[in-house]
This record gives sequence, structure tokens and C-alpha cells, in this order.
Amino acid sequence: MRVGVIGGGQLARMMIPEAIAMGIEIKVFAEAEGMSASLATVNVGDYTEAEELGWFADGVDVLTFDHEHVPTSALEQLERVGISVQPPSKALVFAQNKLFMRQRLSQAGLPMPAWLEVQTPEQLNEFISSQGGKVIVKTPIGGYDGKGVRFVSSADEVSDWFSSLNKLGGSLLAEQLVDFESEIAVLSARRPSGEWRAWPAVETIQKNGVCSQVLAPAPKVDQQQALDIAKTISKELGVTGVMAVEMFQTKDGQLLINELAMRPHNSGHFTIDASITSQFEQHLRAVLDLPLGSTEMTADYAVMVNLLGVESNTNFLENFEATMHRFPEAKIHTYGKSPRPGRKMGHITVLGDDLETAKSRALLAAAVISGS
Amino acid sequence: MRVGVIGGGQLARMMIPEAIAMGIEIKVFAEAEGMSASLATVNVGDYTEAEELGWFADGVDVLTFDHEHVPTSALEQLERVGISVQPPSKALVFAQNKLFMRQRLSQAGLPMPAWLEVQTPEQLNEFISSQGGKVIVKTPIGGYDGKGVRFVSSADEVSDWFSSLNKLGGSLLAEQLVDFESEIAVLSARRPSGEWRAWPAVETIQKNGVCSQVLAPAPKVDQQQALDIAKTISKELGVTGVMAVEMFQTKDGQLLINELAMRPHNSGHFTIDASITSQFEQHLRAVLDLPLGSTEMTADYAVMVNLLGVESNTNFLENFEATMHRFPEAKIHTYGKSPRPGRKMGHITVLGDDLETAKSRALLAAAVISGS
Repeated sequence: MRVGVIGGGQLARMMIPEAIAMGIEIKVFAEAEGMSASLATVNVGDYTEAEELGWFADGVDVLTFDHEHVPTSALEQLERVGISVQPPSKALVFAQNKLFMRQRLSQAGLPMPAWLEVQTPEQLNEFISSQGGKVIVKTPIGGYDGKGVRFVSSADEVSDWFSSLNKLGGSLLAEQLVDFESEIAVLSARRPSGEWRAWPAVETIQKNGVCSQVLAPAPKVDQQQALDIAKTISKELGVTGVMAVEMFQTKDGQLLINELAMRPHNSGHFTIDASITSQFEQHLRAVLDLPLGSTEMTADYAVMVNLLGVESNTNFLENFEATMHRFPEAKIHTYGKSPRPGRKMGHITVLGDDLETAKSRALLAAAVISGS
Repeated sequence: MRVGVIGGGQLARMMIPEAIAMGIEIKVFAEAEGMSASLATVNVGDYTEAEELGWFADGVDVLTFDHEHVPTSALEQLERVGISVQPPSKALVFAQNKLFMRQRLSQAGLPMPAWLEVQTPEQLNEFISSQGGKVIVKTPIGGYDGKGVRFVSSADEVSDWFSSLNKLGGSLLAEQLVDFESEIAVLSARRPSGEWRAWPAVETIQKNGVCSQVLAPAPKVDQQQALDIAKTISKELGVTGVMAVEMFQTKDGQLLINELAMRPHNSGHFTIDASITSQFEQHLRAVLDLPLGSTEMTADYAVMVNLLGVESNTNFLENFEATMHRFPEAKIHTYGKSPRPGRKMGHITVLGDDLETAKSRALLAAAVISGS
């Protein structure tokens, strides 16, 4: 069995150990030499070029992704010649284009913040008024980790986006600013032949638009309701592989869909150390249409904290040893990247039977390793 | 941090995922192309040649092992030029030569079966008489998985070994045939600077001299007594990295040391899925003299069953999918080897809060995947 992964970042990297364990061969199509996943057989090339991807796909059973940026047209070309692309382009398009996603999920009657497709500053200003003076504006394509997202009180604050509207897909997406109690993510996986399994919904804590902590399971959420939403999306959109659904939980307990990702996701890193089957193993099983593994947790709670590069600490591994010494229970993961401020360098997971203890140990361990 | 591993088998292979997770670079010195661990950077060469090993060691922080077969003289040469070899040759010699091991552990006053160094058939026959008519004879070096071990009632049954005694090291080792209740293994790890940690002692069940099942923790053993023996051996012999101590448990509860291995060991594969820190992660930490991780189990029980190649089933992966389907909780590991009867092809681990359930599920899963 052979899987080709497009994209050489840490998500591809973290598929490698699981592929090794199961005896699945993995090949990575990376954007550049020396990337995070370069320990697997790596081809380096331009992922927007269908022909290069076609050569890469030769001899693999399925193509899948570390990111959502491969153009639909390129994927469709590959699918036309019989290459298995999972998730398929017809599903992936809803993770690539946030406006398509809002339209499609509205059709399916799923709960979302109020939203509007806007093409002119006038439309946006009117929506801002109707939403109490402040909204979120997103570029439909290309955004991630807070990029392509702005909180605005006036259309003037995205005048640069309006003036390059064609490049951004012809429209912007304006969304209600939800006054949420917490942010929730549901990780699930689906096979092309239909089997679906989810991990418990988790709470995610963001800092500056980037995931900072994950508490698993989410301490206060209606698990059944959260998982039902994810299941409906998977089936309605024909998603395969691992999918993350990020939601807002309002003060009155309503769940509103925020974003979708159709690949392993930062909010699921806890599954490596705290679940029978990790999101990376499950993704490989799912895209190969193999039976899915148990998503049961092996601990009552798990807390994951991201390790971000910081200015004052160009070598954040300096404190590796001190962290190992003080936190023998901490699972320390690093991605083999050169540090840059704000860059995801690794993560730490701590398991426990008490959420508060696990959280404080994980935060402290992350602080020690980051030298902060 | 860079670790060089001598030997390209499944033990080296299983170090790779842990190295990737921690961000440690790993290089493998394999006996041949296409071996189990060939997914890491591989040099192919003759591990009995100090010069080849010296070139391989260039740029790594430490050299360690997938097997015990590198000649002491070669290791000493490497150590003399300042290469860190872990475990060091002065410790490893006791895992390479079973007679040296018996002599050294006798000096340390550790509990063992009755044993005798024999150089003539007469000496052996006398020992056989003193032991009630049947003993075990071992070649001091080169044996593993039942090779180099015979159960004999007369010196005639090892006449071939007596006639090539020089090649075998000049002596044979004769040992009491212990009427044991169960076989126990203790996996532990020690850093060069002294820190030592052990996983719970396990019960191992052998078939035809090869490990077949491991029950963790061992259901009936004095854990403290078992761990104390392992700790004494580690310190007395100056062992570094992971060490396995295999013991017999007699009907009256006595523990007698059978064999030593100074590397990750088949009896510790359960730690990959059932412990905070796996034996492979711990070995890398230990040989790099990094603080050791927690050895706490994440389940009440874990049962590991080896997958051996069988004659009737040259492709034992045929039933991979059926096994995944019927046993979503099973952790299936395969080593990327071509099947041969009796060859270790992979293993399955099942966790549970009830030992009997975990055992029957693991055995059934192994039977399905082996097509037996």
C-alpha cells in the first residue's frame, strides 16, 4: 500500500511514523528541500502543476494532502485519468473556498453565524450595520492561521481586498462576530465507502488567530450535538480522510460552524498520545479505504499546547533537556523546522485524570521548553 | 541530536517514528539493502569492520544497536577514538557472551539457575547427572530466538559443538532446566549519568524458543523483586539504553535470571501503545543521556502477540483489512519484511481493563491476520 502526500509540512511529517508502524509506504511531494516531512521519500515540485503531480502519483494507491492549496483544476485533471484523490476535488473545494462552504452548509440547513457574500463596500457596510457595528471579513480562498481574516467596523478597513477582488475570487465573505463562550473542534474520519468515526469534541483556545491549546474532551459541550454536526457535513459533502470542524459555542449552548479543514488538524494532535488511533493513522486508513480504528481515548483528559517560535529564542530546543527532566510525563513533539517568531515548531501533550492538572503541567512544560 | 544505529532490523525500524516525533535525527547502518529500517538514512556495510563503523559514526552524537553482534574489538576501537558507544563495550560484552554474563552475575550474588562452564563431554555428563538427567546447553555467543540452545540428556547431543569449540569461544554453557511457573521480563532503561526507570514486569509466553505473547503487567509476580534484580544488573554492569532481563519464575515464587539483552526487546513492544514512553523513545533518550520519560502504562493491561510468517501464507497482509474491520481497537504493526516461515513479520497489541478479554482479542486478531 502506497500513499502520496502533497505538501511537506508537519502534518505530512506526522503521517510518517504511523505509516511506518502499519507498514504503509509514504511519499511526499514537498514545496522545497529540507521541509518538515523530508524524512520520507520526497519529490520537490510545484503543487499547482497537474503534470508534476501526475508524475508524483505514479505508483501510489492514493493521493492526499498536508494542506488545502492544490487548485481544483489540477485535482480534476488527476481524477480524470483515474488517480484516486482523497478527499476528492468535489469535497475539497468546500475546504478551499469559505464562501462555497457557507453556501453549501446553508443548503444543508446546518447552524452557522450570519454571513453574506459581498462584492461592494456598500453591501459590506450594510451588513456591518445589521450586525451591530462589527463583523469579520474573510477572503474566500488562501487564508489560514488568522491570515485572510479581519475584524472590521467599516468597509474602508478592507479597501485593499476590494481593489484586488478578482484575484481573491470575485467576492468577500462577511460573517457575524459571534460572542462565543468557547471554541470547539470535532475531528472525524470517513472512508470513501462510508464508514465514519469521530474523536470526542475538544475545546480549542486560540491566541492571535493561531491555535494555542486544546483540551480533550471539551469540558463543557453537548458531545452528541457536536458530533452530529460533523457527521452531517462529512456525508453531505462526501468528505474522505480526516476532517476538522471548528465551531463556536455560544453562551446559550448553541454550536455554530466556523471553519472546515479536510486533513489532519492541529486540534487533533492530542490523538497521537491520547487515543487508540491517532488522526494520522486514521487519515491513512481512511484515504486507503481501510477499516477505521477505535477513536477511544486512553486517558480521561489530554491537553495539547503548541510550541511557537519566539524572537528571543532562536533555538527553542535549548530547553529540551530541562523540560524532559521536569516533566517526564510530557510528550514532546518537534517538527524539525528552523525557528521563526510565531511559527509552529512543535507541541506538547500531557495526559491525566484531572483536566486542571494536565493543563497546568502542559502549559508549564511548554513555557520551559520555549524559554519564556 | 543525531543517533547512529548499527543493524537494520525491526528494532532499528521502530526507533524511527520516535526519533521523528522528538526531532532527533537517526541514521542506520544496515547489513543489506531494503531491510526493515531502510526508511531512515541507511549506510550498508559490514558491522564487524571497525573502519566502516567509524565512517558511519562521523557526525552522530552516539552509536547504538539493533542487535548484539558487533565484535567487542571493533567497539573498543571506536571508543578509543572518542566515539560514544551506548551501551559501552564493557557492558555489552555481558549481553554478547552468556558465559561472561553468568560469571559476572554470580559475582554480584544475583539469583540464577545452576550453571557450569564446560569444555569436555565428561564435564557436561557429570553436570547432567547432578541435575537429574536433563540440562540446557548454550553456545556462549551468537545465539538468539532459540538458536544456539539445546535441551540435552547426554553430551553426545552436542558433540558437533564440542568438535568446533574454538569457533564457539572455547567453552559451552550448561544450565539447570528450570521447572518454571512462568517466564517474566523486565524492561528498563539507564542513562550514562545514572538515571534508571523500568516498566512493569511482564509475562512472556514462548513457542519453539520464540516470544509469542506478552502480558503486561505480569499477572502474578512480585513486581518489586523483579525490578530490583533489573536495577542491580543495570548498575553493576554499567548498562546504558534499554535492557531486557528475562527471568524464570519458579513454582515457589523465586525469580532466576535467564537472559539479558541490551537494546529494545520484543517483550517491550507493548510500550509503544500502552505506555507514556515507549521503549524505543526511552532508548533514544537514554543513549543520548537525556532525562528519561515516564514508564507509566496508559491502560490497566496490554497484550502483545507476535505475527510470524507461516508456510501457507506467503502474503500475511492479505488479511490486514479483515483484521482492521473486526478489531478496531487492535494496534497492528508490520515490519516491511518479506515473509518466511517463523520470521517475525509484525505484532499486534490490544489494551484493556480486563486481561483475559485483551488476551483473547489479541490472539484472535493475530489469527485472522495470519490466516490461521
